[in-house]
Amino acid sequence: MHPNNPVTRTAIVREVGLRDGLQNIVRTLPTEQKIQWMAAAYEAGQREIEVGSFVPAHLLPQLADTAELVAFANTLPGLMASVLVPNLKGAQRAFDAGAHSLLVPLSASHAHSLANLRKTPDEVLAEIGRIVAARDAAGVDTLVEVGISTAFGCTLQGEIQPSEVLRLVQGVLDAGVQGIGLADTVGYANPASVQALFRQAKAISGDVLNTAHFHDTRGMGLANSLAAWQCGITRFDASLAGLGGCPHAPGASGNVCTEDLVFMLESMGIDTGVHLPALLVLRQQVAGWLDGETLHGTLWRAGVPKT
Amino acid sequence: MHPNNPVTRTAIVREVGLRDGLQNIVRTLPTEQKIQWMAAAYEAGQREIEVGSFVPAHLLPQLADTAELVAFANTLPGLMASVLVPNLKGAQRAFDAGAHSLLVPLSASHAHSLANLRKTPDEVLAEIGRIVAARDAAGVDTLVEVGISTAFGCTLQGEIQPSEVLRLVQGVLDAGVQGIGLADTVGYANPASVQALFRQAKAISGDVLNTAHFHDTRGMGLANSLAAWQCGITRFDASLAGLGGCPHAPGASGNVCTEDLVFMLESMGIDTGVHLPALLVLRQQVAGWLDGETLHGTLWRAGVPKT
Repeated sequence: MHPNNPVTRTAIVREVGLRDGLQNIVRTLPTEQKIQWMAAAYEAGQREIEVGSFVPAHLLPQLADTAELVAFANTLPGLMASVLVPNLKGAQRAFDAGAHSLLVPLSASHAHSLANLRKTPDEVLAEIGRIVAARDAAGVDTLVEVGISTAFGCTLQGEIQPSEVLRLVQGVLDAGVQGIGLADTVGYANPASVQALFRQAKAISGDVLNTAHFHDTRGMGLANSLAAWQCGITRFDASLAGLGGCPHAPGASGNVCTEDLVFMLESMGIDTGVHLPALLVLRQQVAGWLDGETLHGTLWRAGVPKT
Repeated sequence: MHPNNPVTRTAIVREVGLRDGLQNIVRTLPTEQKIQWMAAAYEAGQREIEVGSFVPAHLLPQLADTAELVAFANTLPGLMASVLVPNLKGAQRAFDAGAHSLLVPLSASHAHSLANLRKTPDEVLAEIGRIVAARDAAGVDTLVEVGISTAFGCTLQGEIQPSEVLRLVQGVLDAGVQGIGLADTVGYANPASVQALFRQAKAISGDVLNTAHFHDTRGMGLANSLAAWQCGITRFDASLAGLGGCPHAPGASGNVCTEDLVFMLESMGIDTGVHLPALLVLRQQVAGWLDGETLHGTLWRAGVPKT
């Protein structure tokens, strides 16, 4: 059924709601509830969770408990806990916490890079090199991964040249990272641009390019995920109840909705390891905790079909 | 960018909100507003509109003005007005009204067929033969098209065998219809089943199979449309603001949302002929008329991106 992807029939849906989702709402979810969320997601079969971000607590108080969450995640056998870090300082905290993986966001947009990290993309590239070196020097086994954000367009800058994205892909490969993702941070991707860019990037980086990170800002989250799957991508970021959003697009949806993506993949015969009914129960629980927040997703309303 | 579809770079988004959408809400939109909707959709570039249904007025009072709408549609040069008809009697009314096209729904599900039309699928097949004969005898040039509904699964019956769908495709081909669509009436399709079934059906029917009709019940409307496009399908039913729904799935979404689908196709470089800003203005107007109804769609919240 998938001529471009005849072998792999499994996919990983990495939960990023605890980071990408919660950083985009004002309220702070208590640590105890985050831990319940993680435990239930784990029980439902999720094995990769981005649990938080090592940024200064005054910038993102919602994520100030990230070290505690990593510690809890490390008690769950086989769970890969990842954290987002903006710089070497954050990476050191990730090493100290014992995170399995850290993700550095690298904006393809110059303007977004300056707004987000107060560094140019090349300065971030250099920092990634320092993070890899520090990891090796520390002798820890934290994976260093990079998400190339605004890869398909930028609200601040407008168009992003694919050549610039490919230059950065080569740059992070040279820096020695273990995983690369392309991220449509602000909902500019479409299935054609997804296939074009992922194919070109894969030609450079092979299986090191392993992750797609889509937002559902304009309703194309699942279609873009399908397009990426057809290019051989098997790891997808998603957020329970489509939590999240983008400060530059008020009212916009957040990440691709975890339960909808899992349902699409599973109904296509692709094994995600996730037990959907358990995930829908968790969604309801999290929706209760976040009463009043704008949530997204479609499956929870209609339910799983009879067959 | 589309190896399976290298030639065609245009697609038709057929508006079905005036029929599939309005029949699923209780209130009746005044004829004057339906005419405004049609005129504005035409101004925005839409050239195919399903304007109503020739069923007994007591069954669907919301669509009782279908003949008037066909008459208005026929004043708009180049607009193809289609109507849904359940039987020969409805077809006669379509011929009399001067509809360019009529669509007979043929359920692949035995149970749905009985519930919807009080006929078995084979009885509907026979009726389609009578409709084609009556059209030829009347010497009118109304196209006779068939939408094979519940082609991907059925809320009443559960699984639908692809072999049964293919048998019906052959049956309507033999009956001499000019267009065939596969319809996921209740939101059971996924991109893999879409590709499998469209490819098999196309092997039998070639370009006579020209239409995909998806509902967004479980969020896969656009992903399924993409999958069908990749099989060479270039005509898609859609409903402004995702109007519609399904009486068998309370709270479920309706048809694929016209503006979201147009945006996806256009952003992929596929020409739909539709001017998106005008369509978004129309959406807002229709949303005002239908204040209080559950609407859907994503693009209208985020808007068209800068680039």
